[in-house]
Amino acid sequence: MQSNTVQSIDVETYMQSVGRRARAAAILIAKLPTEEKNKALLAIADRIQAQQGEILEANALDMQRGRDLNLTAALLDRLDLNADRINAMARGCRQVAALPDPVGEMTAFDTRPSGIKVGKMRVPLGVIGIIYESRPNVTIDAAALCFKSGNAVILRGGSEAINSNLAIANCIHQGLADAGISTDCVQVIETTDRAVVGALITADEYVDIIIPRGGKRLIERIGAEATVPVIKHLEGLCHIYIDDEADVAKAVNVAYNAKARRYGICGAMETLLVAAPIAEKVLPPLAHRFAEKGVALRGCEQTRKIISDIEEATEKDWQTEYLDGILAIRIVDDLDAAIDHIARYGSHHTDAIITENQDKAQRFLREVDSSSVMWNASTQFADGFEYGLGAEIGISTNKLHVRGPVGLEGLTTQKYIVTGDGTVRD
Amino acid sequence: MQSNTVQSIDVETYMQSVGRRARAAAILIAKLPTEEKNKALLAIADRIQAQQGEILEANALDMQRGRDLNLTAALLDRLDLNADRINAMARGCRQVAALPDPVGEMTAFDTRPSGIKVGKMRVPLGVIGIIYESRPNVTIDAAALCFKSGNAVILRGGSEAINSNLAIANCIHQGLADAGISTDCVQVIETTDRAVVGALITADEYVDIIIPRGGKRLIERIGAEATVPVIKHLEGLCHIYIDDEADVAKAVNVAYNAKARRYGICGAMETLLVAAPIAEKVLPPLAHRFAEKGVALRGCEQTRKIISDIEEATEKDWQTEYLDGILAIRIVDDLDAAIDHIARYGSHHTDAIITENQDKAQRFLREVDSSSVMWNASTQFADGFEYGLGAEIGISTNKLHVRGPVGLEGLTTQKYIVTGDGTVRD
Repeated sequence: MQSNTVQSIDVETYMQSVGRRARAAAILIAKLPTEEKNKALLAIADRIQAQQGEILEANALDMQRGRDLNLTAALLDRLDLNADRINAMARGCRQVAALPDPVGEMTAFDTRPSGIKVGKMRVPLGVIGIIYESRPNVTIDAAALCFKSGNAVILRGGSEAINSNLAIANCIHQGLADAGISTDCVQVIETTDRAVVGALITADEYVDIIIPRGGKRLIERIGAEATVPVIKHLEGLCHIYIDDEADVAKAVNVAYNAKARRYGICGAMETLLVAAPIAEKVLPPLAHRFAEKGVALRGCEQTRKIISDIEEATEKDWQTEYLDGILAIRIVDDLDAAIDHIARYGSHHTDAIITENQDKAQRFLREVDSSSVMWNASTQFADGFEYGLGAEIGISTNKLHVRGPVGLEGLTTQKYIVTGDGTVRD
Repeated sequence: MQSNTVQSIDVETYMQSVGRRARAAAILIAKLPTEEKNKALLAIADRIQAQQGEILEANALDMQRGRDLNLTAALLDRLDLNADRINAMARGCRQVAALPDPVGEMTAFDTRPSGIKVGKMRVPLGVIGIIYESRPNVTIDAAALCFKSGNAVILRGGSEAINSNLAIANCIHQGLADAGISTDCVQVIETTDRAVVGALITADEYVDIIIPRGGKRLIERIGAEATVPVIKHLEGLCHIYIDDEADVAKAVNVAYNAKARRYGICGAMETLLVAAPIAEKVLPPLAHRFAEKGVALRGCEQTRKIISDIEEATEKDWQTEYLDGILAIRIVDDLDAAIDHIARYGSHHTDAIITENQDKAQRFLREVDSSSVMWNASTQFADGFEYGLGAEIGISTNKLHVRGPVGLEGLTTQKYIVTGDGTVRD
């Protein structure tokens, strides 16, 4: 008990120091010119490549410990670094340097009857806390995005990657120093004490927003316990609805891609809804392609009249994000029934309609309440790079502030700029 | 104890029913055409005017009870309704009908290398909970703004105004019914049980956002206990900095207006910062005008060398939002010292610089981290109507989602719209 108490006092002191330094750094970085930020990002990229050896050595320690702890093969793969992955980190950093800087962007000014002119300026949020698991590349990816958008960042990675993360942090700090910028702009938590997470997500005085990157359990826990606002990235229980006026070839291609391109991403389709009049045309060729790929189908009663050799889908299937080679299929009466199903079971992430009828497409796009709604396109497009954001720090399932893929602009806010000529209010 | 338990079970059941109906209504209202929403708003305005007698009778009951409970004169004034105030409610409702509808607005589509087109559509938030005190006009003002922006709303007013609020709710429901729209779109809580507030701010399943309107204590309590996101409107500790390159006449006029026009609004100046080189020119005429108005000045040591007959300002004065005829004055060395003072003591609400030097103005506008930053204009302009939002549901001191005066757009969010032609991801 005694040692616990001492430890938690230490964490508190440590986190207050981290928080104070982040807040002070945020004031400096908010006013850095774009060129200086870009220079620092390029210096960091150079350091990452020059110090590949040190990073690989640190990573080897984490990998050894991971094997000793019997981490799963999937976890070990996410933890593992090699020359390719390190080069990708440096390349990512240079790509962020090349992106336009959102900070300082102004809207047009509107002259009001009183004589004042009113506009909005885009500004950084302040201090961003990132809590993430295993993948060490998040350390550099998230740091680059927060830095470019003028925010100070506090990074808390998983204990399994602590050596890799600290080696990468070392490169970041040297790059910042090369560019003459305070290393407090990017702080990587040096302790694996779990009390840090609790302290970070309740540090309202020092932290403006928390972005968790990891599994559903991590994100739900942080959402429940945080007092600092959280940009959540929860599950993607995505649907495709094949309308009776769909083009059959497009429908088959898009539905196949939406499931089979990659199972494990949040934009993967989990439930396929098919309008009854077109089911006999669409389902047999789709079933054939899915069978070749090894995707297991589960269907409603009507579906199983068309594809007979598949498991029955139960209520639970409509509620499940498989993230795997499994697909639930339901035949529905019409567009209304599809929209109702999505409203009831969906996770408001990404949903698509396949149809040649523009009016029905418009209704779907308007009425389905998801962060991305699509027409005749694969749900696997739900991604910041695909949308042209240049980079992505996550996909927000929040409704407030930022929804869907989050790029640099999502890490900023706006303030009102009002100018006059000695103007007073009546 | 027994009766408490029974009561809180009732509140829970009641609030679940309210929440479920709001969620269902939100789906309907989100797709209502603008004309139908406007028709309903005009019908509500008609009902308010036609049923002035009933509203006044209900208000008389609240006023009598308020007097019996010895409410302060200020509270009774906020509670009191008369023909003018009721006509203003109807007029406000018609003004909201005349505002442009933000729902459905589209950004331009961007065609991506993959062939998909990506744009954003503005959509309602869903269900909004409003928690407010005394003024019964909030019932109709907030209902009209939430309704026009396509949101269902749950209104929980103060117990002191319950009869007035229910009489107004009656008009709203009749107006909605006249227009053939579900009355569940606007629900006014019918019980004064305080457990309702706790239930509403933790009803994540049914409520998308909470907007508290009331004193600082109410807002802080809701911020601390809510699990639903909150748009907070906290204090305005606003500054004006008179730079050494200010025009003296403009400086005196703006500073006087910023304090003396109205003391009690959040955009009122609370601390005046004056650059040392201009203090002897600016302070004597200002002191003269403030003396005429009866504003009590408190000054730093240097200020008291120029205006000798005023109280000394202490550390506590720099931290105080007076909302009264009191002003703290501090002489500072230069722009940097002014920015530092504002960063240290300000509430990030509204701050202004008076100067003829454009470079210094730009630095102030860029570096002061407040929801509104102003140049040569009075801080009392911080207001949704003055900014051209057409209406205002409050002034957000949040950094996320919406900052500064909140109009219809602040009650909406955006979703991504992606279209293709059977497009799949590589």
